[in-house]
Amino acid sequence: MRITYDFTWLHKDAIGERGVSSQELAALEQAHPHPWKQILQNPYNWPLGWLDLEARTAELSLVRQALARIENRNVLVTIGMGGSTLGTKALAATFVRQTGPSSFSAGERELIVVDNLDEATTAEVIHRAGTQGVVLNPVSKSGNTLETIANFLALSQRPALADSPVVVTTGNRDGALATYARETGAPVLPVPGDVGGRFSALSPVSLFPLGFLGYPIEDLLEGATAARSNLTADDYESNPSLRLAARLHLLATRRNFSELMLWIYCDALREFGRWWEQLFAESLGKQKQVASETVRVGLTPLAVSGPAAQHSLLQLALDGPPNKISGFTKVAQTRAELPALSHPPRGVAEFNYLQGRHLHEIASAELEGTRSSLRHQSLPSYLLILQDLQPEVLGELILFFETAIAVMGVYLSIDPYTQPAVEESKQLARKLLQQSPA
Amino acid sequence: MRITYDFTWLHKDAIGERGVSSQELAALEQAHPHPWKQILQNPYNWPLGWLDLEARTAELSLVRQALARIENRNVLVTIGMGGSTLGTKALAATFVRQTGPSSFSAGERELIVVDNLDEATTAEVIHRAGTQGVVLNPVSKSGNTLETIANFLALSQRPALADSPVVVTTGNRDGALATYARETGAPVLPVPGDVGGRFSALSPVSLFPLGFLGYPIEDLLEGATAARSNLTADDYESNPSLRLAARLHLLATRRNFSELMLWIYCDALREFGRWWEQLFAESLGKQKQVASETVRVGLTPLAVSGPAAQHSLLQLALDGPPNKISGFTKVAQTRAELPALSHPPRGVAEFNYLQGRHLHEIASAELEGTRSSLRHQSLPSYLLILQDLQPEVLGELILFFETAIAVMGVYLSIDPYTQPAVEESKQLARKLLQQSPA
Repeated sequence: MRITYDFTWLHKDAIGERGVSSQELAALEQAHPHPWKQILQNPYNWPLGWLDLEARTAELSLVRQALARIENRNVLVTIGMGGSTLGTKALAATFVRQTGPSSFSAGERELIVVDNLDEATTAEVIHRAGTQGVVLNPVSKSGNTLETIANFLALSQRPALADSPVVVTTGNRDGALATYARETGAPVLPVPGDVGGRFSALSPVSLFPLGFLGYPIEDLLEGATAARSNLTADDYESNPSLRLAARLHLLATRRNFSELMLWIYCDALREFGRWWEQLFAESLGKQKQVASETVRVGLTPLAVSGPAAQHSLLQLALDGPPNKISGFTKVAQTRAELPALSHPPRGVAEFNYLQGRHLHEIASAELEGTRSSLRHQSLPSYLLILQDLQPEVLGELILFFETAIAVMGVYLSIDPYTQPAVEESKQLARKLLQQSPA
Repeated sequence: MRITYDFTWLHKDAIGERGVSSQELAALEQAHPHPWKQILQNPYNWPLGWLDLEARTAELSLVRQALARIENRNVLVTIGMGGSTLGTKALAATFVRQTGPSSFSAGERELIVVDNLDEATTAEVIHRAGTQGVVLNPVSKSGNTLETIANFLALSQRPALADSPVVVTTGNRDGALATYARETGAPVLPVPGDVGGRFSALSPVSLFPLGFLGYPIEDLLEGATAARSNLTADDYESNPSLRLAARLHLLATRRNFSELMLWIYCDALREFGRWWEQLFAESLGKQKQVASETVRVGLTPLAVSGPAAQHSLLQLALDGPPNKISGFTKVAQTRAELPALSHPPRGVAEFNYLQGRHLHEIASAELEGTRSSLRHQSLPSYLLILQDLQPEVLGELILFFETAIAVMGVYLSIDPYTQPAVEESKQLARKLLQQSPA
């Protein structure tokens, strides 16, 4: 594995009363000895294509073909909501410089991600994109996502962009985007039917825009593929995502933990936090029926940047209600980006101990201090150390959290692949627009 | 007031069982008839300088003097953690274009905010800042914030920046930053002693970097000053922050709500969400002693972008545990940034109803749909409509949330102005650095 997984401080013997005990773990293991066997037999016909990395790898040639068609273009505007853009942004931010809250540049090329519906933002995108060499890439599995269609229309109806080539990414032959592509001859990239939106980070949804930036998309899939057998093994000793899932489940159901923080000590992984939040919120936030009673489950995910959040959320985590499980993520720094600090000037003498230190060492000490102070309150935490930010490592990281979610779905007896509740708000919005005069 | 406040859907008669009742409100009012009288008598000597807007206005001349000294400079690098930079970013993002996750440009001028400790980010700042016309602005009330000092040393020790002028913002004569300024003759801007870090958005902490961008800082203070008498009135009918505080307190203590979402339907207010999160988390996340028992209080704040988060957090909010109170914020759109959508092309025929619509109308319909679907689950929400994003409006918005916090502190019998728990993690980090060899 390319990531070091440390779950020690989720345990009672390390942090005291609020940790999970070996007995509880043993009982859970006994109750669910083969969660992966159960998942892979797939009795409910769940969309498990995110595990079919051979199929995803086979799609790479489609992505490469589509990229070849736009080789002479230098601005790609990818338009999509939720899972249609969260993976793209998460990975792009680890690879190239961000030129705005939602844009990335690599050499001559720029990727602009339109991931919200905000008139001022879309107007700014039109201004930034210019008129030359722009490609529009609406992404929607259903092909009917209202915000995506609205943004796509707003962009493509501007005279400056009206002749820009379009590459559609969609998974529904009958959706508006697929129909549009047939009418106009625009090329279509698939969103596989058995890959849900928030599980599509390793599909053409993100591989196309990432490939445009020169991201080594093959290596991303290789990293996930290399980790897969470990991450889908029914082995409570050696499968890290199974280990995390078991512990999170016990903390949630036996210790009343209701919130999951992810402390990210690496600015390049900031956007990854948004992807992670969606994965946990939509997958596990569910109603279920237990003996004809409605039970509501779910953990609130909260991804924050460290050390910054020590000056923001930490006070609440330490002194507030003891309901937060903290994950910590950092990258093993093997290469200094800056020289070590030299002797502080006069006046800053009390910081003489910083002499000879690298900033990444100071940040690591902050992480340790924060974890220790949580431990002293008997608050559980775990630590992931990424070898580096190479695509192979991120492929493993993505599959790690996705497989943890799949197992937690089994423990909770819920379907982690749907989002039934959000339909109503969409219908209400559509109705409002259809009923009131334009 | 420049903001329209709508708390209707926090009430039982509008949303059902989970709302607050008139009886509960009446009882709270009876128990706390004069929270503002109590606050302003200030028996605990709380730092209430954030209400002393006359003193803040008087400081404007110091800010203007400091700005005059760097008139010929075009890059300002402001370095600070938590409250030392959150207000700056929140307001800068409403005013000018963001050129990165933490940088802003206005004409020839660029403001780079270093708000985390990440070696790669600081290296990138050095690269971006160039060598000409750079000013360094370390900001720390204590003058001893480890990450701020470390970043400041890393920047000022680079040959390219070694001769850059420095403007220090600090509130502690004995701190490292003040001592450094005395030794080097660098000008110092004050952080008033009676203004805590997270309450310093209307002080030189942010007014200096904002003024550098050309932000009308006088208007910001005027807006807050104009709203102050309303927002500090002991009037449960007409004071909007008192009304919100009362309802949030009842929902938290009588209905077990533990999380506060802020749905921001305006990309330019995204950074405002981070400021708001810190204000709520650090102010209300506290331990207190009740009859020699330790009680932990606090609400977890979660600011999200709408409509985007309808594709991320909404499923959890609707189907997950009913523990979230949702605030919604939008800006009354009086001016279209883009023409209305024209007739959709063939293939997108089912979206014909979008013809003649502006994107901001669609986003507003999404907001309404989302609020209604929460209401149908008996989940409480409130709505703030900002007249526009002018500084006067944002001054009111900042004071609105700050005054709500002050009142909630009274209801909870806690001190909202401290953050006692975070000290330990700082000490542990320092110890680690002092004990291990560099």
